[in-house]
Amino acid sequence: MKVVQAIKWDEDALHLLDQRLLPEKIKYLTCRDHRDTARAIRDMVVRGAPALGISGAYGLALAAREGWQRFGDKNSAENQVSNVKQFLIDASLELIAARPTAVNLAWAVNRTLEAALLSLSTLGTAALAKAAWQEARDIELEDVRSNRQIGRNGAALIKSESSVMTHCNAGALATGGWGTALGVIRQAWLDGKITKVYANETRPFLQGSRLTAWELVQEGIDVTLLVDSAAGYLMSLGRIHAVIVGADRIVANGDVANKIGTYTLACLCSKHGIPFYVAAPASTVDFNLDSGSQIKVEERSEKEILEFSGKTVAPSGAKAFNPAFDVTPGSLVSAIITEKGNVFPPIAENLGVVLKDKKRL
Amino acid sequence: MKVVQAIKWDEDALHLLDQRLLPEKIKYLTCRDHRDTARAIRDMVVRGAPALGISGAYGLALAAREGWQRFGDKNSAENQVSNVKQFLIDASLELIAARPTAVNLAWAVNRTLEAALLSLSTLGTAALAKAAWQEARDIELEDVRSNRQIGRNGAALIKSESSVMTHCNAGALATGGWGTALGVIRQAWLDGKITKVYANETRPFLQGSRLTAWELVQEGIDVTLLVDSAAGYLMSLGRIHAVIVGADRIVANGDVANKIGTYTLACLCSKHGIPFYVAAPASTVDFNLDSGSQIKVEERSEKEILEFSGKTVAPSGAKAFNPAFDVTPGSLVSAIITEKGNVFPPIAENLGVVLKDKKRL
Repeated sequence: MKVVQAIKWDEDALHLLDQRLLPEKIKYLTCRDHRDTARAIRDMVVRGAPALGISGAYGLALAAREGWQRFGDKNSAENQVSNVKQFLIDASLELIAARPTAVNLAWAVNRTLEAALLSLSTLGTAALAKAAWQEARDIELEDVRSNRQIGRNGAALIKSESSVMTHCNAGALATGGWGTALGVIRQAWLDGKITKVYANETRPFLQGSRLTAWELVQEGIDVTLLVDSAAGYLMSLGRIHAVIVGADRIVANGDVANKIGTYTLACLCSKHGIPFYVAAPASTVDFNLDSGSQIKVEERSEKEILEFSGKTVAPSGAKAFNPAFDVTPGSLVSAIITEKGNVFPPIAENLGVVLKDKKRL
Repeated sequence: MKVVQAIKWDEDALHLLDQRLLPEKIKYLTCRDHRDTARAIRDMVVRGAPALGISGAYGLALAAREGWQRFGDKNSAENQVSNVKQFLIDASLELIAARPTAVNLAWAVNRTLEAALLSLSTLGTAALAKAAWQEARDIELEDVRSNRQIGRNGAALIKSESSVMTHCNAGALATGGWGTALGVIRQAWLDGKITKVYANETRPFLQGSRLTAWELVQEGIDVTLLVDSAAGYLMSLGRIHAVIVGADRIVANGDVANKIGTYTLACLCSKHGIPFYVAAPASTVDFNLDSGSQIKVEERSEKEILEFSGKTVAPSGAKAFNPAFDVTPGSLVSAIITEKGNVFPPIAENLGVVLKDKKRL
């Protein structure tokens, strides 16, 4: 199965699939330095927690090369190291500030920074660019490996002849290249268990129509879009056998923050006796928060609802409520699917047991 | 309270507010004969069951005048009557065929036709146009009167300091000029009971953004839009005290066919202990069907989901599931609000009692 890659690296540069243009245009935007990368992150060329992390890590690898080119052959060795170090710290701050709420971005940039600084302090500027790149590459490969395992763990839960539903895009486009919720769907499709995928269009950004449907069409997976509000009706007809979504963040008691609409789907699944699965890497679980009520829900611009593609759809004078995500209680989740295993109810108890390492990655 | 009028009549013609242009342009389309009217109905200039009925009735009034002008002064009196009669029957069929699934349209056109034919057979062609117009006007005034009563009956159920939610547009634009669900909201707002209205945008046609928000803004009623999928999250925050929707059709056991998304809202209300009210004239109740499962749900064009405002939003190869409405079991309805009174659970038992006349109007 040939899966689309949102992030590509060649000798010279980072190439990011411009997700703002999908599905109409397939165009990669080239980032030749960390500034380009920060701008691409800020401008939503790339989205999805793991994909942001990987992009940020490669952004820092580009910064390492820039630092070496700029300071690597000047002055004393001591000055070189100190200048490059400052340059890398500044670059990492710039990359992280491009999407301040993305926990994964900060985590991956900092991890790459640490590897670069370690190389710098032990080997000087010579091996720096290579070391930073190697760390970014590791982060990417670990993500894909973990997605593959999530896919296998999740596919084991899907019954044969299933029609499944997903929301937003937790696919190859949001990750290193396989996907979390869509990783499960891909694997179960390959295993011959899934006959049909229903993708909610996911207002206001239509990630379902623009991204999820596009990914699945590429691979010949049968995909049908619906307006978000039709999910309940489709379930009442008995045409949905499982719902699988990704997660922005999962907290200690199993509460899940994910794209707005996720909570409504979980309520509908509970009402119709349909399994509701959340697929996410273990790094998404934040044991520092006890309950979903502690998660601050970002409210985005009213414009995203009052306008569509630059065209006004609502009258002047109308307000809009535009939360980016919602919080689903762990009690409504049938299983959290991670690369370390599936966490079943009671989720609050089992989450720590399955993930073992209780610290945030 | 000055309420927008979707349908206006003057000496010469029928003027329909072109709802396709809202909220950007306020433009009335003039129908000078029944052909114009049928075209306007077909092209979605006007929508909403009662508004379609009233428009169709006035369309037949226009046909009566055309018939009189064309045949009223020719040949023998007998020929006149027979020619005009045939002309009116043809015109009524053309009007009804403009929206074949709209039960109200057929009902109102046929009622006006009967009045015209009665006048024709008793008084000849002279009083025909006046008789048809009078019947259309009666249908319009009855609708407004019934909406006003629905408003009063419904407002009695709303508690003070309420934030209410509605879906799609069951307002002045969909009726003779006050609205069913929005009639209740208007009255409760006037009574000082409502502090805030949340309107779901209602994909795929965005009637919530384009029509409901527009109506409410006109009258200074505080209105906030949200994507349909955010309804559950808003309820979980305790910010919704009642949901009020209209109905396309209600059957004998209380099952309600209404705009897609209504069923999801009813499930969410049940989960959160929020009253779920359906406001509709008694003529919407169809005692000929026992259960909602007998209602055939119209599936509309995939394009409405795959495109937005002429712009493609989904990849070629993706399919779409686009039901125009869904069916909500009567067991999830807290009350059906009609002009004849409020019908409380058990709805299947009480519907006949409150409405008394068990026949379809």
